[in-house]
Amino acid sequence: MADQYAQSGEDKSTGIPAIRWEEPPEGPVVVLLDQTRLPAEEVELVCTDAPALVEAIGSLAVRGAPLLGIAGAYGVALAAARGFDVDEAATALAGARPTAVNLSVGVRRARSAYDAALARGAGGEQAAEAALAAARQLHREDAEASARMAEHGLALLDELLPGGGHRILTHCNTGSLVSGGEGTAFAVALAAHRAGRLRRLWVDETRPLLQGARLTAYEAARSGMAYTLLTDNAAGSLFAAGEVDAVLVGADRIAADGSVANKVGSYPLAVLARYHHVPFIVVAPVTTVDGDTPDGESIEVEQRPGYEVTEVAAPNVPVTGAGSGVPVAPLGTQAYNPAFDVTPPELITAIVTEEGAVSPVTAEALAEMCDRSRGVAIG
Amino acid sequence: MADQYAQSGEDKSTGIPAIRWEEPPEGPVVVLLDQTRLPAEEVELVCTDAPALVEAIGSLAVRGAPLLGIAGAYGVALAAARGFDVDEAATALAGARPTAVNLSVGVRRARSAYDAALARGAGGEQAAEAALAAARQLHREDAEASARMAEHGLALLDELLPGGGHRILTHCNTGSLVSGGEGTAFAVALAAHRAGRLRRLWVDETRPLLQGARLTAYEAARSGMAYTLLTDNAAGSLFAAGEVDAVLVGADRIAADGSVANKVGSYPLAVLARYHHVPFIVVAPVTTVDGDTPDGESIEVEQRPGYEVTEVAAPNVPVTGAGSGVPVAPLGTQAYNPAFDVTPPELITAIVTEEGAVSPVTAEALAEMCDRSRGVAIG
Repeated sequence: MADQYAQSGEDKSTGIPAIRWEEPPEGPVVVLLDQTRLPAEEVELVCTDAPALVEAIGSLAVRGAPLLGIAGAYGVALAAARGFDVDEAATALAGARPTAVNLSVGVRRARSAYDAALARGAGGEQAAEAALAAARQLHREDAEASARMAEHGLALLDELLPGGGHRILTHCNTGSLVSGGEGTAFAVALAAHRAGRLRRLWVDETRPLLQGARLTAYEAARSGMAYTLLTDNAAGSLFAAGEVDAVLVGADRIAADGSVANKVGSYPLAVLARYHHVPFIVVAPVTTVDGDTPDGESIEVEQRPGYEVTEVAAPNVPVTGAGSGVPVAPLGTQAYNPAFDVTPPELITAIVTEEGAVSPVTAEALAEMCDRSRGVAIG
Repeated sequence: MADQYAQSGEDKSTGIPAIRWEEPPEGPVVVLLDQTRLPAEEVELVCTDAPALVEAIGSLAVRGAPLLGIAGAYGVALAAARGFDVDEAATALAGARPTAVNLSVGVRRARSAYDAALARGAGGEQAAEAALAAARQLHREDAEASARMAEHGLALLDELLPGGGHRILTHCNTGSLVSGGEGTAFAVALAAHRAGRLRRLWVDETRPLLQGARLTAYEAARSGMAYTLLTDNAAGSLFAAGEVDAVLVGADRIAADGSVANKVGSYPLAVLARYHHVPFIVVAPVTTVDGDTPDGESIEVEQRPGYEVTEVAAPNVPVTGAGSGVPVAPLGTQAYNPAFDVTPPELITAIVTEEGAVSPVTAEALAEMCDRSRGVAIG
């Protein structure tokens, strides 16, 4: 049984903790900020078992590639600490969303720590602690990776756009709501803002689930950035008017050849950016690179329910359709609703990770960076 | 005072009359199908004066380039028949939406007929009849133009895509809801459907007002076409997967150089189509070509209120925001909301009018076609 319940958010004026581990007397829990209810309400979702977390991942209450990895790791730790079947929990968590590679990486990491402890002869409780330690470590590393991505990304921006006064277009949500730290693409824009070099953040609303309007605008407003919201299809007019200096997006999976799966709508931006000679920059942690996926065609793209398109959902909107909101299309309308699209490496100016920027994007350069990263982790 | 009221629609199973002139005992009225309430409800809006019609045009209860021309002409006839100031009505109507050239063309046409009658020594009543006759004539001509555009458009499709089984992507709404006949781009897709040569109509939802989801899907469903709805930003994935054989869109204004102003989101499709070597075809009546607008830069693009983007509106959704729906973005969020974008001629494979197809699109070829059209109208 999925066991989760909602509680009102505490004062979060000093930051937005998207996920945390807590140990109340009733037993350990994973507490999530319910992102489906932002920006109208800050409500936390308390998950007491892995199925609850799987459900939260599926409903996008928790989302964003790096954060999914952290959630997956905590989920394994939760199953272990509560004495549930760790094997079963790990499988369910890793499969909760097929495109985000970080999710399975995070699950695997906590799982390996758990198994290794058992193999060393540890008891269940100690093995659970090992899983939790691995999850906490991943959480910490992700925050550090955010900071380094921001640094490398800002340096790249300054190099590509020496004039300053950056007008950056971004898609979907890539800030502290997707990360143990300040995020990926958004963290770079935030660094530019703090350095006084961000003139404007153009925020794509990101249909169908409006992560841009609901979440990125929320984070931009909280950070005091100059931002403007637009429908995804209005980006073309901005490019044509010369109002975009660079596009910054995150990634859900990067294939070995440098193809990037990211929120649907990223690929059209990459094509527009190329047509208008504007840099298209992907910012993601090294864990997003999946050496086992050779190219873009091998990336499995999650198809989401059609009602996300045929119905309109928002806080306080009554659910009168078959899905989650009010129907806007005629009943029986079929929808094509891929969650992601794939941008080929030749349209990507650079991929920025915590290890630095890869540009031009080639399989060799990516592999070299991943090797360097593993070297650092081991060394 | 704007004087309009709603009445329940009659049985419209044999067609969708988007606009009609009626003469009940209380005096003449213009009856519109309220497009803001589709597809949930078929409600008619009865306008008893020009300000009511101006309001209906502003709220998009009536919309679509050719239909706006007809509405403008009937509006002038209405002011004349009701004894209002025709000058004032004509000015208000022509300015109700700045980008659609057909609107002012339609207004001018009824106005000229009215003025000419007065100049001939006719009384007010006869002059009003002349204005109405001009409006009815425009309405009839538009229906005929639709039929001819469909014919020319289908011939072009068959020439460009000799294999048949067309998979056509369309944006916004261009069917019988925008026209005295069966529309522009949609009429071509409908002709392909009737000829058994339409494999699928891909319907862009068309944010922010969802004319694709609400209106094109409604018209496609009523016509029995195989159609699939998608978010505007998912079109990129369709192109990448080779699932689009041609793009068909309408136009709100065509400059003398062949630049096309159409619903925002058309330009990104043109760029995607070019990148993927897919024909991008504009279908519009000759009246859409505006010789007084030399090029794309001279086209005034209407900026619409930000709340169309920051709030979600749908039938039965309570209005809790400052605009027309429920806020989805943080309060105070600014939005960039151009109603149209401009596609340069070099990205347009062909412009199809009732006079035939112009391809490649050049100022000379367009001018020649317009001359031919005027010749036919005079001769």
